[in-house]
Amino acid sequence: MSHPFFKNHGPFKISEVIKLLNIKINNLNNDHQISDVKDLHNSTENDISFFHSKKYDNIASNTKASFCITTSTLQYKLPKSCRAIVVDNVLVSISKITSLFYPDSINDDFDETVKNINDSKYKDKVSFGKNVLIGSNVLIGNNSKIGHNTIIEKNVIIGDNCSIGSNNVIRNTIINNDVKILDNCVIGKHGFGFFPIKNKNLRYPHIGIVLIEDNCEIGCGSTIDRGSMSNTIIGKNTYLDNQIHIAHNVKIGENSIIAGQVGIAGSSVIGNNVKIGGQAGISGHLKIGNNVEIGGGSGVIRDIPDNTKVMGYPAKNIREFLRDNK
Amino acid sequence: MSHPFFKNHGPFKISEVIKLLNIKINNLNNDHQISDVKDLHNSTENDISFFHSKKYDNIASNTKASFCITTSTLQYKLPKSCRAIVVDNVLVSISKITSLFYPDSINDDFDETVKNINDSKYKDKVSFGKNVLIGSNVLIGNNSKIGHNTIIEKNVIIGDNCSIGSNNVIRNTIINNDVKILDNCVIGKHGFGFFPIKNKNLRYPHIGIVLIEDNCEIGCGSTIDRGSMSNTIIGKNTYLDNQIHIAHNVKIGENSIIAGQVGIAGSSVIGNNVKIGGQAGISGHLKIGNNVEIGGGSGVIRDIPDNTKVMGYPAKNIREFLRDNK
Amino acid sequence: MSHPFFKNHGPFKISEVIKLLNIKINNLNNDHQISDVKDLHNSTENDISFFHSKKYDNIASNTKASFCITTSTLQYKLPKSCRAIVVDNVLVSISKITSLFYPDSINDDFDETVKNINDSKYKDKVSFGKNVLIGSNVLIGNNSKIGHNTIIEKNVIIGDNCSIGSNNVIRNTIINNDVKILDNCVIGKHGFGFFPIKNKNLRYPHIGIVLIEDNCEIGCGSTIDRGSMSNTIIGKNTYLDNQIHIAHNVKIGENSIIAGQVGIAGSSVIGNNVKIGGQAGISGHLKIGNNVEIGGGSGVIRDIPDNTKVMGYPAKNIREFLRDNK
Repeated sequence: MSHPFFKNHGPFKISEVIKLLNIKINNLNNDHQISDVKDLHNSTENDISFFHSKKYDNIASNTKASFCITTSTLQYKLPKSCRAIVVDNVLVSISKITSLFYPDSINDDFDETVKNINDSKYKDKVSFGKNVLIGSNVLIGNNSKIGHNTIIEKNVIIGDNCSIGSNNVIRNTIINNDVKILDNCVIGKHGFGFFPIKNKNLRYPHIGIVLIEDNCEIGCGSTIDRGSMSNTIIGKNTYLDNQIHIAHNVKIGENSIIAGQVGIAGSSVIGNNVKIGGQAGISGHLKIGNNVEIGGGSGVIRDIPDNTKVMGYPAKNIREFLRDNK
Repeated sequence: MSHPFFKNHGPFKISEVIKLLNIKINNLNNDHQISDVKDLHNSTENDISFFHSKKYDNIASNTKASFCITTSTLQYKLPKSCRAIVVDNVLVSISKITSLFYPDSINDDFDETVKNINDSKYKDKVSFGKNVLIGSNVLIGNNSKIGHNTIIEKNVIIGDNCSIGSNNVIRNTIINNDVKILDNCVIGKHGFGFFPIKNKNLRYPHIGIVLIEDNCEIGCGSTIDRGSMSNTIIGKNTYLDNQIHIAHNVKIGENSIIAGQVGIAGSSVIGNNVKIGGQAGISGHLKIGNNVEIGGGSGVIRDIPDNTKVMGYPAKNIREFLRDNK
Repeated sequence: MSHPFFKNHGPFKISEVIKLLNIKINNLNNDHQISDVKDLHNSTENDISFFHSKKYDNIASNTKASFCITTSTLQYKLPKSCRAIVVDNVLVSISKITSLFYPDSINDDFDETVKNINDSKYKDKVSFGKNVLIGSNVLIGNNSKIGHNTIIEKNVIIGDNCSIGSNNVIRNTIINNDVKILDNCVIGKHGFGFFPIKNKNLRYPHIGIVLIEDNCEIGCGSTIDRGSMSNTIIGKNTYLDNQIHIAHNVKIGENSIIAGQVGIAGSSVIGNNVKIGGQAGISGHLKIGNNVEIGGGSGVIRDIPDNTKVMGYPAKNIREFLRDNK
C-alpha cells in the first residue's frame, strides 16, 4: 500500500474513530492513538485494519494491528493483540475511517493550487506549450515536454525525456522516464468506487496513485483511474492505443500492447507480453497471465493462464472460438 | 416537450410554413398564424403538429392542433378541427418546419457569446479555475466549482454545490444540485439525428435539453447528447463511469449505476436502480425496467422487464447465458 | 502515396541508407543518390522500395526502383534494374530508412510553432473562439469557424464553411469544405503502429495524413489517426457519431453513417452508403463493400461483400444471427 500523495490527518484517538461508526464498544481505552489505516499485512500496532472475507484468514491471524474492523463471524480469527470492532458492513466502516485520515482523497474537485507554468520554477527547465497549468508540489525531470492546455495538478511526478501532449488532465500520478502521454487523456482521478445508497451514494476514498513506468505510451482520449487502497500500474514499455479505460487498482505488466477502446475493470491484474485486441473488455478482479493474447472484441470474464490465446464473449480458447464460428 | 432554451422565432403564417414543403394545399386561410410546433398531445389550436405512425391513432384523434403534417393514409384519424397536411415524408417535413421556428437548434457552432468568467457576474460567486468561459444566459447556484478550461456555453443552468471538472463543454443543459461532472465531457450537443440524403444529409433540429438531476456523477470523457423533441434525462443519484455515451432522448431513472464505456442509443428509457456493466450497449427505443442488471459487454436489443438480470449478445437471462457458456 | 506535409530530408547516398541496417553489401556504388522511399508501384529509379510478401510478386517484378529491401526468398522476383538488399526484417528496415528521410513523422510532440490566432493572419478572416492556437503553415478557407481552446497544429488545411468545435487537436490533416468537427476530438496523430521490442518498442514513421472530404461530420471525443504509408480518408458526406476511433490507413467511402463508439482497426476499407451500428468493431485489413449494414455491437473479422446486412460476433448474415438468437 503506497499513497505518497495524500496527507494523513492522523493520529486520531480510537474514540474519535469509533464515533464515526455509530456503534458502542465497551472497555475501550478511549485515548489510544491510531496513526493510520492499513491492510492486515502492513499494519503495525499503531494502526487500525479491516478484515471482511475469510479468504484473508491467514493474514488476519498474524496481523500486528491493534484494532480491526470486522464481522461477528470473522472476529475470532484475529490474534489477542488485536481488538475486533464488529460492524454490520466492514467496507462502509473502513471507508468512513479512511476518509477521516485522508479527507483529500475523496473528491476530485479541480486543483486550486495550479498556476501558469510561466510563473513556476519550470519556466526554464522544460519545454511547454500555451496555457499549461502546474500544481503546487509537481516535480518534472529533464528534457520533458508538456503540451498546450495540459493541466498537471498537484501530486504529480514526471521523469526525464517524457512527452506529454495537449489537453490532458493529470493528478496523483508518478510517470517515470521516456513516457509518452498523447492528447485529451485524464490520468489519476479517483476510480468508480462507492457504496450505493438510495438518494445519495457514499464515495469511498481513493488513496492510491497511478504509476506509469519507463517507455510507456498512452493513446489519445484514454482514462486511467488511480487506485483505492493499492495503486494502478502500467508496466514498463507497455503501449496503450486511443480511448482506453483502465479502472482503479488495475496492474498491467511489461511489454504489453493494448489496442483501441479496450476497457479493463477494477483490480484486474494483467501479465507481461500480453496483447489485447481492440474493444476487448476484461471484468474486474481477474488474473490474466503472461504472454496471453486476447482477440479484438472479446469479453473476458474468467482468469486466463499464461501462454493462452483467447477470443469471444465470453472469451474461450481461440481455436475453439474459430471452430464454433466457421 | 420542454425546450426552454431555444428561441421560438414564430409566429409564422401557415402559408409561410407550407411553402417550405414544396406542396400545394387548396382552400387554406393563408394568414392563419401558427405559434409553435408541438407533439399531438401538447398542441393547442395555435400550433402545428405531426402524425406519422398509427400507434399514435388515439392521441391523434384528440389533438387540439389546428394543422397536422401527416400521410394520406393517416389523415382520416384526425378530428375535424385539425386540418391534415399530407406529405410524402412526415419527419422530413416537420423537421423543416421546426427549423423555421427554432433555427438556433440545428447547428452547434461554438458559442460566440462566452466571456472569461473573470469578466462575468460569477467572478465572486463561484469557485473557478483558469480560463473558464461562461455564455450569455448561464445561471450558477451557490458553492459550485468550475474547473480549468471548462466552457459553459449559453443555455446552461447549474444548481448549488456542484463540482464541474476541467476541459468540459456544456450547453443546453440543466444541472440540479450536488452534481459532479468530472473532466473532458461534452454535454448537451445535438444528437446524431439527421435524414440521410445523398451528398448532403439534412440535420434535424434538436430543441430538447439535457437534464441532470440531484447527486449525479458523470465520469471523464463522457458525452450526453440533448434531446430532439423531448429531453435527455439522468435521474437522481445515478452514477456514470468514464467514456460513456448517452444518445439523444434517453431517459435514465434514479439510483442507477453505469460502468465504463457503456453506450445507450437514442430514445431508450432505463428504469430506477439499474446496474449496467462495462462496455454494454443498449439499442435505441428500448424500455429497460426497474432493478434490472445488465452484465458487462452485453448487447441489449430487446426490452427488459423489471427485476431481471441479463447478459450476452444479444442479452438474455443471465442464468441461461452462463449455462450456455460453461 | 501522398505525404504532402512531412519534409523529405533526402537525398541520401545509398551507403548512408545501408549503414542504418547493420549489414554488409558488396559491390555497391556507395555514392548513388536516393531521393525518396516509396512503395513498389510508385518508385522511380531514384527511389528505394521494399518487398516483404509474395502477394506483391507482380508489382515487384515491374518496379522502377533502383534498390529494394527484401528477403532472401523474394529477391529473385525483382527485375535486373533493381538491386535487392536482403535483410532479416523488411518492415523494421524500411521503417529505419523512412525515419531517415522523414524524421518529423515519428513523434507527435506538441507543436512549438503554434501561436494565438489573434497574432496570426486569420485574425480577421475566420470566426474564432477564445484561446485558439494555429500552427505555422496552416491554411483556412472562407466562412469557417474555430471553437474555444482548439489547437490547429502545423500541417493542416481547412476549407470553406467548416465548423470546428472546441477543445480539438488537429494536425497533419486536410479538411475539405462544409465539414463539421464537433468537440474534444484528436485528428491526425500517428497511428498505433510500431515494432514490439523488449524494453523499448520501435515506433515507425507515419508519413500519411487524414483527409476529410466535403460535408462530413465528426462527433465529439472521436479520434482519427493519420496513415503510415498511405492516408486515412473519410469520404464525402459521411457522418461519424461520438467517441469513434478510426485507426491509421482506414478509408471510408461516401454517404456512410457510423454510430457511437464504433472502432475501425488499421488499413480496413469501408465502402459507400455503409451503415454501422453503435459499438461495432471492425478488424484491421478488411474490405467492407458498398451498401453494407452492420448491426450495433457486431465484431467484424472477415470481408463483407456489397449489399449485405450482418450482425453478431463474429458478424454473420443478420437473418442467420436473429434466427440463431430467437
